[in-house]
Amino acid sequence: MPAKSTAAVKDKSGRSLGVRAQKTRQKFLDATAKLLAERSILDISVTEIAREVDSVSSLFYHYFESVEDAARHLAQEVSSEMPAMVELIDGDWTGAEGLQRARDLSEAYLDHRERTRGVLLLRNQAADRGDKRFLAIRRDALEPLIDQLTELITGAQARGDVAADLHPYLAASALVSLLEKLSAYARSVRHFNASRDDLVDTCARMVYTTVSGK
Amino acid sequence: MPAKSTAAVKDKSGRSLGVRAQKTRQKFLDATAKLLAERSILDISVTEIAREVDSVSSLFYHYFESVEDAARHLAQEVSSEMPAMVELIDGDWTGAEGLQRARDLSEAYLDHRERTRGVLLLRNQAADRGDKRFLAIRRDALEPLIDQLTELITGAQARGDVAADLHPYLAASALVSLLEKLSAYARSVRHFNASRDDLVDTCARMVYTTVSGK
Repeated sequence: MPAKSTAAVKDKSGRSLGVRAQKTRQKFLDATAKLLAERSILDISVTEIAREVDSVSSLFYHYFESVEDAARHLAQEVSSEMPAMVELIDGDWTGAEGLQRARDLSEAYLDHRERTRGVLLLRNQAADRGDKRFLAIRRDALEPLIDQLTELITGAQARGDVAADLHPYLAASALVSLLEKLSAYARSVRHFNASRDDLVDTCARMVYTTVSGK
Repeated sequence: MPAKSTAAVKDKSGRSLGVRAQKTRQKFLDATAKLLAERSILDISVTEIAREVDSVSSLFYHYFESVEDAARHLAQEVSSEMPAMVELIDGDWTGAEGLQRARDLSEAYLDHRERTRGVLLLRNQAADRGDKRFLAIRRDALEPLIDQLTELITGAQARGDVAADLHPYLAASALVSLLEKLSAYARSVRHFNASRDDLVDTCARMVYTTVSGK
């Protein structure tokens, strides 16, 4: 499960929750995440979530307005994993450490994607459909990573290592969607005669080349 | 509008259509495409499509089972533009022609994506949701391009120009989704302080580097 946010946990009316209520709320979130990993949100009812945790729908509605509301909270929880990824790529990319940083990022992203698959799929589909709240959650999650990569590419261009016609922000966005896209292959990679290691290697190499020009 | 398929055009029962009927059918398709460029398929009714072309719903149902059925035919029409893109990248990538080929591909893809935006968005969302028919349409459209890029990367690896840890098929798939992703930015690119040319340059440079190792 993703790391929990340190902000005070609240019910849907904005009241802070005690320890016991927080636990109940988290159980509902975990059950929602479990069901989202199996099927579409359209096929998940509050009754079913409540049944998963031996509770009742009315208690679910004390914390969340709807299954979608719970899914939004899950998507926000998942976003809290991103700062650690930004830290992974902070530092020197000019030598062999660069390729190692690219590998660490690819591993971490793949791992993140696999653990939170249902939630991220829902977030991305809702955002692609134009849902403003999920768009904001995705932007907040990915922007620090894109910004960090943009800065690295800008630095490499200033040193003359990377072609000047690469737009740093667009290239950084492309790399993040490449991580996203290739991570999505993790479960079907054997159909392409490839392994999970091939995925990590390919992501890492493309990120490294774009960021370092090597 | 995309080039028409050369296969005989049929109604939904599989009967071949005369010239006049083909024109009517195409009008329905064009109206569906126009509406899809403006809003979600969920908000488009057969009545509305019929109204766009001064016809009636019952005639629409002579050719198509539903709005989704018409959208599937549109997605197939759009796929017929892909072979021309595969031809664009056929040839030598070792010198400056390589970068030019990458630019031509990026231009063509961006152009294709802009003209067929509504249809491609629908196709991708349906495919991402796991719809088997749209998945097959997308696979048939993109696979020739992925295969051609895979072959180019494999050749460059054999010459020692491209790192051996790149998985050719995965890298080729990543490039195609990068084209797709960056093309999707075309309408919002000014928010990132970038131009359409920046998009083409960035796509081209990333494709060129991955395919040629330069």
